[in-house]
Amino acid sequence: MTSTQEPAPLPAVPPGVHPFPHAHLLGIEGLKPWEIGFLLSEAEHWVELSRSAHKRDDRLASLTQINAFFENSTRTLLSFEIAGKRLGADVVNMSVQSSSMKKGETLLDTALTLNAMHPDVIVIRHDASGAVALIASKVDCPVLNAGDGRHEHPTQALLDALTIRRRKGRIEGLKVAICGDILHSRVARSNFHLLAALGAEVRAVAPPTLMPAGIERFGVTAFTDMDAGLEGADVIMMLRLQRERMAGAYLPSEREYFHFYGLTAKRLATAGDNVLVMHPGPMNRGVEIESQVADDIARSAITEQVEMGVAVRMACLDVLTRARRGAAGWEARA
Amino acid sequence: MTSTQEPAPLPAVPPGVHPFPHAHLLGIEGLKPWEIGFLLSEAEHWVELSRSAHKRDDRLASLTQINAFFENSTRTLLSFEIAGKRLGADVVNMSVQSSSMKKGETLLDTALTLNAMHPDVIVIRHDASGAVALIASKVDCPVLNAGDGRHEHPTQALLDALTIRRRKGRIEGLKVAICGDILHSRVARSNFHLLAALGAEVRAVAPPTLMPAGIERFGVTAFTDMDAGLEGADVIMMLRLQRERMAGAYLPSEREYFHFYGLTAKRLATAGDNVLVMHPGPMNRGVEIESQVADDIARSAITEQVEMGVAVRMACLDVLTRARRGAAGWEARA
Amino acid sequence: MTSTQEPAPLPAVPPGVHPFPHAHLLGIEGLKPWEIGFLLSEAEHWVELSRSAHKRDDRLASLTQINAFFENSTRTLLSFEIAGKRLGADVVNMSVQSSSMKKGETLLDTALTLNAMHPDVIVIRHDASGAVALIASKVDCPVLNAGDGRHEHPTQALLDALTIRRRKGRIEGLKVAICGDILHSRVARSNFHLLAALGAEVRAVAPPTLMPAGIERFGVTAFTDMDAGLEGADVIMMLRLQRERMAGAYLPSEREYFHFYGLTAKRLATAGDNVLVMHPGPMNRGVEIESQVADDIARSAITEQVEMGVAVRMACLDVLTRARRGAAGWEARA
Repeated sequence: MTSTQEPAPLPAVPPGVHPFPHAHLLGIEGLKPWEIGFLLSEAEHWVELSRSAHKRDDRLASLTQINAFFENSTRTLLSFEIAGKRLGADVVNMSVQSSSMKKGETLLDTALTLNAMHPDVIVIRHDASGAVALIASKVDCPVLNAGDGRHEHPTQALLDALTIRRRKGRIEGLKVAICGDILHSRVARSNFHLLAALGAEVRAVAPPTLMPAGIERFGVTAFTDMDAGLEGADVIMMLRLQRERMAGAYLPSEREYFHFYGLTAKRLATAGDNVLVMHPGPMNRGVEIESQVADDIARSAITEQVEMGVAVRMACLDVLTRARRGAAGWEARA
Repeated sequence: MTSTQEPAPLPAVPPGVHPFPHAHLLGIEGLKPWEIGFLLSEAEHWVELSRSAHKRDDRLASLTQINAFFENSTRTLLSFEIAGKRLGADVVNMSVQSSSMKKGETLLDTALTLNAMHPDVIVIRHDASGAVALIASKVDCPVLNAGDGRHEHPTQALLDALTIRRRKGRIEGLKVAICGDILHSRVARSNFHLLAALGAEVRAVAPPTLMPAGIERFGVTAFTDMDAGLEGADVIMMLRLQRERMAGAYLPSEREYFHFYGLTAKRLATAGDNVLVMHPGPMNRGVEIESQVADDIARSAITEQVEMGVAVRMACLDVLTRARRGAAGWEARA
Repeated sequence: MTSTQEPAPLPAVPPGVHPFPHAHLLGIEGLKPWEIGFLLSEAEHWVELSRSAHKRDDRLASLTQINAFFENSTRTLLSFEIAGKRLGADVVNMSVQSSSMKKGETLLDTALTLNAMHPDVIVIRHDASGAVALIASKVDCPVLNAGDGRHEHPTQALLDALTIRRRKGRIEGLKVAICGDILHSRVARSNFHLLAALGAEVRAVAPPTLMPAGIERFGVTAFTDMDAGLEGADVIMMLRLQRERMAGAYLPSEREYFHFYGLTAKRLATAGDNVLVMHPGPMNRGVEIESQVADDIARSAITEQVEMGVAVRMACLDVLTRARRGAAGWEARA
């Protein structure tokens, strides 16, 4: 279902401006449109490589990539591990349950410990918002945020944007409805920043109890009625209901949630004809999304999102390590 | 104790027939004798490589191997990981406890997720019979069954056959007694198929409660008396008592089980003089097997089985990926 | 804070003597001073490599390194994994909780299983003293002790010595106070042996309940008064309070422990002006050590210890595998 016409150009890097002057990738907030565009255009190359028979590039050979995951994850860790290995890096995983971390060592001591092993890039997931930025401030190598609390999950927003652009040919001007548990979602937050930067018209669709206060500051329009939120949408991004983050809060029954906010085939009819359905995974079928919709190959881009994930992470790992690899034009980075 | 005489030839691949036309290795059932023979002859090469000082071949370089283990395993996972790395593959492990899987995502969604990352081969262990075949039907790359429920564990049967052939010089015509918890054993099932295909005379020895109904359909003879089953045997394969799979069923006490079905030195005397003792591991000493027997280097092939395991898995990984690596003669595979 | 003057020479290997004639590294006890010195001098090279842009050497390429950790560990496993990968080895991790090991297989069977996979070096951590030596006696490849019970943790003592030498220019004649939970500490034990061999003057500072009986046999002086023990010390090594090993024993409250045995800035004043503060990590801030002291960059070498850890482990992996790699002069090793 990839658009047959040539995709609209991404925001161009202005003359004389560095395409990505940041030491780390901690979030989408604050990135210039052309910086986002640059990462997306870099990722295209890695989509092709991963689809080819020889899916290996050795530009990260001899470099050490530490995946430090302080929160359980299977698919994101796998995606970053495959991305690093396809680039030739020595990849090591450190999975630490927050509980065992609390046995003594502070987060900063863990950061200093990792740093002392001379990694060339650290990929971090943590259940506390801001934890990744804290670690980044203490280490000598690039840090890539793989999700921190309710804050940001930048590679998810990038892979979502890459998927949208490949399917719809553009991002600017599209009506994108982000639906579900927005309150607890770093995926939503990163997407709000990215889609605003690239000129999409973004709607947040959620029950009142799962809608963050002051959401208008992200430049999005809030809807508590699902049908109204989906009307005329070009893209629908469903979010996972994060029950594990809802301790003490209002917890809707799954049946009730599905009734009001589940994406059904019937509800989908209110959206545009060529609407694209997305979900960051893992999906709760019958809770957020009807199976019939999830499996609608023409409209659903859910597995393509996973594929774009590896490519986007390869792009980020490559770009963030260019300065230390001495790539031309990257030495003088801020 | 390797036989000094030249081993009997393996079943030859008929002229004009492809040596292994299958996209996946999901089980031994249905394999032609020469297909089994082909995998065994390929494995011989990898035995030599693993015994050498330079134990690396790079034919899987640039390929991604995902070991997706939905059931706890230490030794099998280690064996597949070493096998893949010795062939130069980028190996990534995904260990998912079934319980955490049930947090939402279905098995098929997991399969589609893995597939979207463009692996070149997926090795799967799952506690549900048929789960591996289900995944194989949804992905674009070869799938290797590392054990699914009570169904099959094909590489175990292949490594057992390789061990027997190296020790006894042949498989055809041997009397092989498979003893113990046959009801729950995928190892037994795969061995029934393989040994029948290669012409061994197979006996199943088990307590009535652990003997599957209709076991004769495998072409084996059932014995509930251990001494009768062992009489004149050339090979004795002991099985692990899988207490974790026996919830609700009749559970013998370990002492009782050992008394009636444990392999003791005394009981071993009823078997042939040059009997070979095997066990897929991990062993419960004093439950299924007496320590004196397990440690009888002349008769026990238990550690040799582990060694053959790495070699057989290297052969399977190599053969299954030949089509995508463009190996001559493998392009036209079904 | 590295000493500006040239460091004192390490003990020289006597003419005609092999620099490291041991098949395994199971402990520091029994090593000759020049054998320790040899490992330390080898490690210097790997410090430089890890600090460089191209942090990879391929001398262990095609070799299989198994990290068999029978006890939870994050930082030590990470350090050995990075060390092996920087040397080009195929590194595989086997993390086995002791509990799940007890499901059946004995330690020796596990050792024989690992051995049958033809590893070239096995790194082992186990919660039972002597378990690593037992495994080493059953396998055909070098074994490296990564910590066994209360017995030894040789690479920790080596990295401590490397850190001290780089900071203080020498080890001989230094006053080193090892403080805290000495009773449960394999780190203390390995350091007693190493520091005695290299001629330091060692003090053990601990509460009476955490001071092993007969500690004088290590050639150390025992102090139960912290201030007396620190007086004039050149190096203070704090130990982690290992509450998880204290079941049933006298367990001081953290507040009480810190009051009497915590390293505070005030207490530090009784030590020498240029005292070096060390801790094997992970630190319990406010229990064994005051944050102000841990973070005193001029005096604290805690993150440098982590850095030296990777270098020392690279040296040990290299030296132990030289015989099987056919390195000149290593063929005839005992």
